Amino acid sequence: MSSIRTTPDALAHLLGGEVVGDRQLELTHLRSLESADPGSISFLAQARFLPALRASDAGCVLISPDLRDEVSGRRSAVLVDQPYLAYARLSQWWAAQRRDLQAGVHPSAVISPDAHLADDVFVGPGAVIDAGAVLASGVRIGPQVWVGARVNIGERTDIRSGVRIAADSQIGRDVLIHPGVVIGADGFGFAPSPQGWVKIEQLGRVVIGDRVEIGANTCIDRGALDDTVIEEGVKLDNLIQVGHNVRIGAHSAMAGCVGIAGSARIGKGCTVGGGAIILGHLELVDGVHITAATLVTRSIRSPGQYSGAYPFESNRDWEKNAATLRSLHSLRDRLRALEKQMEKTQS
Amino acid sequence: MSSIRTTPDALAHLLGGEVVGDRQLELTHLRSLESADPGSISFLAQARFLPALRASDAGCVLISPDLRDEVSGRRSAVLVDQPYLAYARLSQWWAAQRRDLQAGVHPSAVISPDAHLADDVFVGPGAVIDAGAVLASGVRIGPQVWVGARVNIGERTDIRSGVRIAADSQIGRDVLIHPGVVIGADGFGFAPSPQGWVKIEQLGRVVIGDRVEIGANTCIDRGALDDTVIEEGVKLDNLIQVGHNVRIGAHSAMAGCVGIAGSARIGKGCTVGGGAIILGHLELVDGVHITAATLVTRSIRSPGQYSGAYPFESNRDWEKNAATLRSLHSLRDRLRALEKQMEKTQS
Amino acid sequence: MSSIRTTPDALAHLLGGEVVGDRQLELTHLRSLESADPGSISFLAQARFLPALRASDAGCVLISPDLRDEVSGRRSAVLVDQPYLAYARLSQWWAAQRRDLQAGVHPSAVISPDAHLADDVFVGPGAVIDAGAVLASGVRIGPQVWVGARVNIGERTDIRSGVRIAADSQIGRDVLIHPGVVIGADGFGFAPSPQGWVKIEQLGRVVIGDRVEIGANTCIDRGALDDTVIEEGVKLDNLIQVGHNVRIGAHSAMAGCVGIAGSARIGKGCTVGGGAIILGHLELVDGVHITAATLVTRSIRSPGQYSGAYPFESNRDWEKNAATLRSLHSLRDRLRALEKQMEKTQS
Repeated sequence: MSSIRTTPDALAHLLGGEVVGDRQLELTHLRSLESADPGSISFLAQARFLPALRASDAGCVLISPDLRDEVSGRRSAVLVDQPYLAYARLSQWWAAQRRDLQAGVHPSAVISPDAHLADDVFVGPGAVIDAGAVLASGVRIGPQVWVGARVNIGERTDIRSGVRIAADSQIGRDVLIHPGVVIGADGFGFAPSPQGWVKIEQLGRVVIGDRVEIGANTCIDRGALDDTVIEEGVKLDNLIQVGHNVRIGAHSAMAGCVGIAGSARIGKGCTVGGGAIILGHLELVDGVHITAATLVTRSIRSPGQYSGAYPFESNRDWEKNAATLRSLHSLRDRLRALEKQMEKTQS
Repeated sequence: MSSIRTTPDALAHLLGGEVVGDRQLELTHLRSLESADPGSISFLAQARFLPALRASDAGCVLISPDLRDEVSGRRSAVLVDQPYLAYARLSQWWAAQRRDLQAGVHPSAVISPDAHLADDVFVGPGAVIDAGAVLASGVRIGPQVWVGARVNIGERTDIRSGVRIAADSQIGRDVLIHPGVVIGADGFGFAPSPQGWVKIEQLGRVVIGDRVEIGANTCIDRGALDDTVIEEGVKLDNLIQVGHNVRIGAHSAMAGCVGIAGSARIGKGCTVGGGAIILGHLELVDGVHITAATLVTRSIRSPGQYSGAYPFESNRDWEKNAATLRSLHSLRDRLRALEKQMEKTQS
Repeated sequence: MSSIRTTPDALAHLLGGEVVGDRQLELTHLRSLESADPGSISFLAQARFLPALRASDAGCVLISPDLRDEVSGRRSAVLVDQPYLAYARLSQWWAAQRRDLQAGVHPSAVISPDAHLADDVFVGPGAVIDAGAVLASGVRIGPQVWVGARVNIGERTDIRSGVRIAADSQIGRDVLIHPGVVIGADGFGFAPSPQGWVKIEQLGRVVIGDRVEIGANTCIDRGALDDTVIEEGVKLDNLIQVGHNVRIGAHSAMAGCVGIAGSARIGKGCTVGGGAIILGHLELVDGVHITAATLVTRSIRSPGQYSGAYPFESNRDWEKNAATLRSLHSLRDRLRALEKQMEKTQS
């Protein structure tokens, strides 16, 4: 990993901005305002972080042209219209400099003679690729990954260490899947019988669109008969459970520990906060935003923000309020009785 | 994977039903009513799906004899007493046709010379089987699985890719364990001391009964001294946490993201909805059903349904109601005061 | 695994206690009071378990000197000041007797020629160690583990089967990491753009202190720019999500299924109950204790216990109370109106 060097001038060229201050300052790190030093680039995403900017030693800062006055005394800055987006793009350039792209198939990988690998794929040590799998150009398979039979993986998709992709899954292009993810395990389907639960074999697939990212140890189950579908541009954080036959619309994003039960349909451009649970067979239209730790128990037909977590408080207050909550219905009845009495009194 | 062909006649024979319509219609797919075509078999599990049946192109449908009139104009149907159970059994037959059962031990697997494997087991690439492990007839070990020392696995049990089974675990017959499951990791046990937490070594085992199914990335910890026990026929979904010394009674089923804290005892035939948390050292009797996202804080002595999630609503309404909830106790006090005043007023 | 034999005398020597009864009784098992037999050692952690002690067949019991009278009729006992802590230490001695420490590097492991391994490390079958990784003396790497480039692992740290440690992570000494853990996957960071989410590359590291324990399938994401930090002595249970740039203070402990969103800062000596969610960019001071299933939505500046779960009840009661909760705000308004009327009436 060689070190990275850049300048405000080069940054302005890369990100499309205007330099203020020293154009040739040597910059070797990308850091938060708090930990930046004179060799560091940082960024100001929102005006409410101005105190941090003022206290920061950053050699160069990406900042909105509106805040030009804030950087007049600084060593350097690059004025960009959307500093957070510019930072995202700079982070990608930075990562690309550091990336150490190996190619080829490690001799310890076990590749079926009936798998089809493009010439330039990378397959790490201990990976297993089953018969009929198709890996397109630029695909990267990390160490100890399992790719099941007839799995199809699109161009440039990056599968990290220890991911499990069961037979017949379809993965798009430019997808990123983090370690420990399980795609295509059986959905949870059983029919009751006098002898106990009878397994319903899960015969559908998982279909994942382009530019999806899936966080560590997240699970996406295969469909029972039809497919489970994750549309393009969806971003899933770690430890999320996606049940069989779920559909998640394009560009929706979900935070860690979310659970989506079977056959739920989530619209496009939705967001779901950490730990929220969405019950099965519901439909959420496009543009629905679910607050963390909310249980969604019925379909949502209008875009907007929905919430449902108990407000936390000191344990002492919680005990009193929770006890009262248990008798809330009778409180309501008592209130109604009082209202009637009051009416009589006043009439 | 060769294609599958069947007929209404063959289905009636397999499932024990009566054919209506074309007995020799060629059927090549098993599909939901919505996506079925004339070559597809589908099923009607409940009368409320009749509109979907009427709109469906399915060539053959499994349906209750009560609804015979609904299929008189269709190409074919098979009348069966319990269509959902019949569908479950058909799905098993279907999966069996597609199954490509390899046998033997892959040369890249690492098998201790002191492990005992029946002649017909399958062990996939990169699997590791430690000393003293016993694999009975028909056991299947997927790629990259780890089976620890002295683990015992019963007949026909199917362990999928990347499962980890720690030393001394006992697994029954006809068990199915999905990718990424961890069985027998240490339970969470520490004694406080002035120098910090002191580890309590976890010396018990995990014991799993026959016909259990365990979903992807679920974790079942070993006992501290006694064993953690999952009784026969239990079905666990993905990403479930089962703490040390938990006992789950026969034929109980739990949805994804459930957490069961240490030493909880769950009865037989219970169900637990997704994301519910059951605290430690509690006892739930047989036939308890816990709604999704409920926190169970004390033992439950009577069968029935128990719930406890905050009802979700628009964020605007939630903010108002949650703020009021924080002062619920004082509301109660004010109501009581009013009632007393009213009594005085009226007397 | 040879069997273990000890005596009350040897226990008193090991744990620093006083023997009551037969000093030379042969003891071969460590068991709970309930399942102990005359060859077993057990312990009494709290006086409320005295009925279990009286019913127990345990040959020897670790017990507080205060309860000396309780053991006068028993075969043997060892009086120790803190029986639970003594049991923890005995469990460690017991585990050490059973431990079967292999050494060396398994020939199927794939070790980069540019990795640095101390002479006495153990590396299990199928493990992969990338360039620049440094494994200190006594480190144990389980089967099928992946250790990324430039990862640093301190003395005696024990990494169990199937753990994934991404590049540049720093792991302290005497750390224990259970199967399936993922350390250093990308944090969840994206900038919105008209074309969808733009990835923010995660350029920070994960830094884990000494004597940390991490439960199965838990995920700790790398920082965006600065590091994610788990301080010394922290204990994390299974299936926990720790977002990017989180800091968890020394000796804090968290139960299973907890989620900590990005940039949250948890103090020292905190505890978090199972399934709790802590939102991002919050700060919890030292000594904060969060009850299970609580959603923490703002910073907590005072030590103490905080709670926020809906109290569970029968589904019937829950339905009535939850419906009323939805109109809680109007209940409050009606109460206020009544109070005003009452004032008028009384004046």
